[in-house]
Amino acid sequence: MSKDVVVGIDVGGTTVKLAFINLNGDIMTKWEIHTNRQEAGRYIVEDLATSVLEKAKEEQIDMSRVLACGVGAPGFIDVDHGVILEAVNLGWKDYEIQKELEALLAIPVVVDNDANVAAAGEKWKGAGENAENLLAVTLGTGVGGGIIAGGKIIHGVQGMAGEIGHITSIKEHGSLCNCGKRGCLETVASATGIARLGLDSVQEHRIGYLDEIFEEKGAITAKDVLDGAKQGDELAVEVLDEAMEHLGFALANLANSLNPEIIVIGGGVSKAGDFLIESLEKQFKRFAIPRIGRDTKLHIATLGNDAGVIGAAWLAQETYGLTSS
Amino acid sequence: MSKDVVVGIDVGGTTVKLAFINLNGDIMTKWEIHTNRQEAGRYIVEDLATSVLEKAKEEQIDMSRVLACGVGAPGFIDVDHGVILEAVNLGWKDYEIQKELEALLAIPVVVDNDANVAAAGEKWKGAGENAENLLAVTLGTGVGGGIIAGGKIIHGVQGMAGEIGHITSIKEHGSLCNCGKRGCLETVASATGIARLGLDSVQEHRIGYLDEIFEEKGAITAKDVLDGAKQGDELAVEVLDEAMEHLGFALANLANSLNPEIIVIGGGVSKAGDFLIESLEKQFKRFAIPRIGRDTKLHIATLGNDAGVIGAAWLAQETYGLTSS
Repeated sequence: MSKDVVVGIDVGGTTVKLAFINLNGDIMTKWEIHTNRQEAGRYIVEDLATSVLEKAKEEQIDMSRVLACGVGAPGFIDVDHGVILEAVNLGWKDYEIQKELEALLAIPVVVDNDANVAAAGEKWKGAGENAENLLAVTLGTGVGGGIIAGGKIIHGVQGMAGEIGHITSIKEHGSLCNCGKRGCLETVASATGIARLGLDSVQEHRIGYLDEIFEEKGAITAKDVLDGAKQGDELAVEVLDEAMEHLGFALANLANSLNPEIIVIGGGVSKAGDFLIESLEKQFKRFAIPRIGRDTKLHIATLGNDAGVIGAAWLAQETYGLTSS
Repeated sequence: MSKDVVVGIDVGGTTVKLAFINLNGDIMTKWEIHTNRQEAGRYIVEDLATSVLEKAKEEQIDMSRVLACGVGAPGFIDVDHGVILEAVNLGWKDYEIQKELEALLAIPVVVDNDANVAAAGEKWKGAGENAENLLAVTLGTGVGGGIIAGGKIIHGVQGMAGEIGHITSIKEHGSLCNCGKRGCLETVASATGIARLGLDSVQEHRIGYLDEIFEEKGAITAKDVLDGAKQGDELAVEVLDEAMEHLGFALANLANSLNPEIIVIGGGVSKAGDFLIESLEKQFKRFAIPRIGRDTKLHIATLGNDAGVIGAAWLAQETYGLTSS
C-alpha cells in the first residue's frame, strides 16, 4: 500500500495535539490528549502511541499507509539523535524519544523543537507561501522563533538556533531575562514585555486609556495596550511603537543577515493583525538594508494551534519521504 | 582517470587568484592574473579559462582529472543559475558566468559570492575546524560576511544573506553607509570605521598616541588605533572598545539566533590577532545568551589571501563531488 499519510504531534505542557495529515499537508483528523507529567513525564510517549494507534483504528487508517511521524517538543533537542536533552516543564532529560516512539509505533520518527516545527508549519500551509527562506517569530508569554534557510530548519551546533527572543535589544540597564542575560527582545516585545511597558507608562503618566484600565482592573495586559493603540490613545500608541521598535530592529538585523522572503508573526500578540504589522513594518524598514526593507514580506501567522501538528507532519515527510513540497 | 583535482578561482577587482587544489583542500599550485576590466569585464572569463588550461599543461595536470571549478566573485549572484546579477567594480551585469566558463573549460562550474566562498575556505582548511555551523566576518575597507549553517552556505531569497556589515548598529544619528542606510556595523567596525572613530577621538581630546600620529601624518588608520591600544594608550583603547562593542553586539545577536560553533574574524583589522579577540570576546559575552557566550569560539582567520581559492574549491567538490569533508 502506498504511503500517503503522516502523523504530526505537538507536545505541550498541558495538552498534546495530534493529527493524521496527508502528503499535501491537509489535516485528515486531529485531536488532543492530556499531557501526563507525573513521574518526570514517563507516561507521555506511551499515551501518545496508544492514542495514535486507537485513532488509526477508529478512522480506518491502516498504519501501513503511514510514512512517518513528526514530533515537536519543547526544550533543547539533539535532532540528529532524536533525543530531548532537557524539557524542564515536562520533566524530560536525555530522553530518547525517537527510539521509544519508533518502537511503539513501528514507523520512522523525527523530532524537533516546537518553535522550529511551528515555523515549518507556517512555511508549508500557513502564511509562509512555502518560502525556502523564512523567519517565524511567536509573540506570546515569551518570544519564540524558528529559522528556515535554503528550505531547511536551522539548528546550530547545540540545537539552540532560532532563539530570536534572546537577541539583545537593550544594551544598558535592560530588564533581567530568564536566560540570565539583560535586555532580551523577550523582555520588551512578548505579551508580558508589552504589558510591562504599558504599566511603566501608566506609572509615569497616570492619564489616558491605559490608566483607566489600570484603575479598573489593577493590571495592564498586552491586549489593553493594543486595544488602546487601535483607539488612538496617544500613550498606548507610544508603548506599542516602543515594543515594535525593538522587534523591528531585531528582525531587520536578522533579515539583513539572512535575507528571508517572508517573516511570519504569530502568538497571542499577533491577533492584533494588520494594525500590528503596520507599526512593525515602519520600524523594520528603518533598520533594514533598503532593498531588504522593500522586498521582505511581513505576514501574520494563519495556522494558530494547528501550526505545530502541520509542521511536525512537514518534518516527517521532509525527512522520510520524497519532497512533495 | 579518477577525478582528484578541482580548480578554485577568486575574482577580485585588480587580480584574479587561481589554484589547482586536491580533494583534501591542499593547494597543488596557485597563481594570479591581472583583472582586465576593459569593456565591462568582457575579457575576464576568457583570460581565466586560457590561464587555467595553460597552467594545467605546464603542471602536467590532465584536465580529465579535474572534477569541477568553483568561482568566488564580488556582487549579487544568482547561485542557482550561475549568473552574476551585478558586480559593479567588474562591470558585469546579468552575466552568465557559469555557462560561459563551462563552455570554455569543459568541466562543471559553480559560482558564489566572494565573501561566502572565503567563509567556506576558512571552514574547510582555516580557522573553522570544518564546523558545520560557522560565521565568518571580514574587517577590511568594509565589513563582509558569510554564514554557513547545517554545512551549507546560506544565500537567502535574493542571494543577499551574509551581509553582516549592514546590520544596524547605531539606531539614531549613525553615519550614512554606502547601502543607503545609517548606522551600519560597517561604519564603525571596518578599518575605515575604526579610523574614523580614531579621528573623532583625536578631534575631541587632542592628547595621547593618536594625537601624536595625527600631528605627524595628518591622518589616522585602523592600524594606528590598534597599535595605540596595544601600547595601552587610554584613548586608543577606548576607540577600539567602542568598535568591538558594536561588533560584539552584532555577532552575539547573530550567534543568539544561529548558534554557530565558531566565528572567524578575517581581513586587515584581524592582523591585530589575540589582542583583538580579547577585546571582542568581552563584548560578545555581554550580549550573548550565557551558554552561547561560553561555548562559541572566536578565532582569527588563518588562510589570508588563499581563503577564496580554497573556498571556491570546497564549493566545487561540495556541489559536484562526493562529500569528502
